[in-house]
Amino acid sequence: MKILVLNSGSSSIKFKLYDFPSRELLLAGSIERIGEADSSLRLKGRNLELDERVALADHRRALESLEEIFKKSSLLDSFEELGAVGHRVVHGGEDFEESVLIDEEVMGAIKRNVSLAPLHNPANIEGIEVIGSLSPSTPQVAVFDTAFHQTMPPEAYIYALEIELYEKYGIRRYGFHGSSHSFVCKRASEMAGMDSASFDTITLHLGNGASVCAIKGGKSIETSMGFTPLEGLVMGSRSGDIDPAIIFHLYRELGMSLQEIERLLNRRSGLKGLCGENDMREIELAAASGDERALAAIDIFVHRIIKYIGAYFVLLGGADAIVFTGGIGENSSYIRARVCERLEALGVRFDSELNERGRGDFLFSTKDSALRLYTVHTDEESVIAEDTYRIVSLAESMNPTP
Amino acid sequence: MKILVLNSGSSSIKFKLYDFPSRELLLAGSIERIGEADSSLRLKGRNLELDERVALADHRRALESLEEIFKKSSLLDSFEELGAVGHRVVHGGEDFEESVLIDEEVMGAIKRNVSLAPLHNPANIEGIEVIGSLSPSTPQVAVFDTAFHQTMPPEAYIYALEIELYEKYGIRRYGFHGSSHSFVCKRASEMAGMDSASFDTITLHLGNGASVCAIKGGKSIETSMGFTPLEGLVMGSRSGDIDPAIIFHLYRELGMSLQEIERLLNRRSGLKGLCGENDMREIELAAASGDERALAAIDIFVHRIIKYIGAYFVLLGGADAIVFTGGIGENSSYIRARVCERLEALGVRFDSELNERGRGDFLFSTKDSALRLYTVHTDEESVIAEDTYRIVSLAESMNPTP
Repeated sequence: MKILVLNSGSSSIKFKLYDFPSRELLLAGSIERIGEADSSLRLKGRNLELDERVALADHRRALESLEEIFKKSSLLDSFEELGAVGHRVVHGGEDFEESVLIDEEVMGAIKRNVSLAPLHNPANIEGIEVIGSLSPSTPQVAVFDTAFHQTMPPEAYIYALEIELYEKYGIRRYGFHGSSHSFVCKRASEMAGMDSASFDTITLHLGNGASVCAIKGGKSIETSMGFTPLEGLVMGSRSGDIDPAIIFHLYRELGMSLQEIERLLNRRSGLKGLCGENDMREIELAAASGDERALAAIDIFVHRIIKYIGAYFVLLGGADAIVFTGGIGENSSYIRARVCERLEALGVRFDSELNERGRGDFLFSTKDSALRLYTVHTDEESVIAEDTYRIVSLAESMNPTP
Repeated sequence: MKILVLNSGSSSIKFKLYDFPSRELLLAGSIERIGEADSSLRLKGRNLELDERVALADHRRALESLEEIFKKSSLLDSFEELGAVGHRVVHGGEDFEESVLIDEEVMGAIKRNVSLAPLHNPANIEGIEVIGSLSPSTPQVAVFDTAFHQTMPPEAYIYALEIELYEKYGIRRYGFHGSSHSFVCKRASEMAGMDSASFDTITLHLGNGASVCAIKGGKSIETSMGFTPLEGLVMGSRSGDIDPAIIFHLYRELGMSLQEIERLLNRRSGLKGLCGENDMREIELAAASGDERALAAIDIFVHRIIKYIGAYFVLLGGADAIVFTGGIGENSSYIRARVCERLEALGVRFDSELNERGRGDFLFSTKDSALRLYTVHTDEESVIAEDTYRIVSLAESMNPTP
């Protein structure tokens, strides 16, 4: 069966088309600037490459265009031919501990969680509704960024605020990047030849967004992103952890509006705020040529990571492995080295050559290291496709079509 | 010589009078509700106990009353007889790495730092100015909460914000409780029979305000309080670390004003927000009788502490000791046990009996523990008195009065 994976944002849709059970990736692409006059539609498949500018007024028009292209290229006659559509849904709140087949009840719950993710869930909902109207009989699956972290214990997810804020308004740590943390943890346990139920690991998803997760026996027990994806590590343009009182100070002493402060923390902070650049490759080049701000940005980025590793090592009561993933985690041997050389107190030892030469998924700790160190390629879309395939196959086996 | 230690708040003044070099505490007390009709003046000395209600319009009237009492009780004829006055000053910004004799230049710097501590520095300044006008020839010393942490490296004190916010506006981690962390670290190194220059320790000041400090060779390399005392651990009524985006959510979705949110985070959060009570003794009693909110509050309090211990253990590259101090740190064997039993991954082992029976300053780790565990009584006023005595004596030896 063919499975379409959709990641619908407010003005963009990213998509991948897979064939199952072969798991062949047939096509990948994105539609950007939806609602503007020069929306772009790019995609790349085996015998197909496209880069168009067209006015796509909304998500419906965008997905209709995509269906048209599928038809022209003989990939699919229509969406009706799809075995299923898998959606990335950012916020599942406390309602979802795993991926689910979408029905009315599920849609109701996703809608209830809009206030928790006002920037993300509405676009996810739109993607689901458009597919539902273009192709009513196609099963749809929701895969939540938050679901994997629903196993956190209360002491990890409850902030020290008035308890009513949690009880009445759902203000708590949710965590994100769940599919990625779950995927790379499983992969590392396979590489270690260990049962994931007894594998304790710290997974570092280091991309433009970045988070750490403490995973005990396959279950998330804490993660660095919190109520929103703003908390935690230093990210491309997000501050991560700060003294919350800085917000009051910026408002009162610097006369900034709350909206400006929110933009500052989300878009002009992190690596970008520290050195003007959020691409780690560029920052490393600048640092190598002696740029002091780039050097300082890397120091701060690494410092925050090693603090979380120490914290999670203790929370886990010791760990078997540390796993690096995401654009920076997978590609920057320099950052991996900078992090690992600061972990001597935990008995971590790494092999510089393995670290630099490794490609794909690889181990780079030495044999006498107390923790194994892995680099694992994450692929959130393939996790979504896998979950979608599994759930749809299960549903079919339980309710076989006559 | 007699040394008066003053801790001036916006509507209160706490004071202690010492004799040096005997270090005898002659008297201790506080003036509360300054500016109201029923200000209270309480004090307790060897042959003296007082609890008065009088209208004290301002800090000048309050300190004049104190001088009057000293005179009546024959402790001092006037403030002119004091060898020195030592002031607790909350915020020294980046200007002070240690305690200093106050002169015009110092006052200028303290005033420049008012915007960093608008709630605290103005009252500290008032205390200094009133003493200066009542007793112009008495040397005054400023002891800063922040000074001890000025040794932090940039990666520990710079937030991942636009770098201009640090460079132009001084927005960075400063840390507080410096006198206390410094004092208990020194005391623990003495108890360990180790040179403080090679003694690496994690000090936990757990009181109504609470902070952790990583101290390498006697120098603070990081601490949990940040730009203000709001960041870090769960405190009596302060939230400590939260996702900063919660502030935007409370404002937008719950319609709270920024002022209300600031009050919420500072006064209605922490232990009080979680279980309605900020006195750990009461919380422990409630938890012992099965109160679920009290139990959860303790779990969250402990959880945050062990995360910081793990983080600082890695930052320090391993540590020799963990030191507990402050009201909770010194008096709650239960909290110490709850924390230490979660530190097995660091090789920490504690002796339950020593933990429960220890009085004063004591060691409670077992001999095979990888880190020593100490409980040390902190006394910020005596640190201020010691610093004041040392600085005044040094100044006198360099400029002997004829």
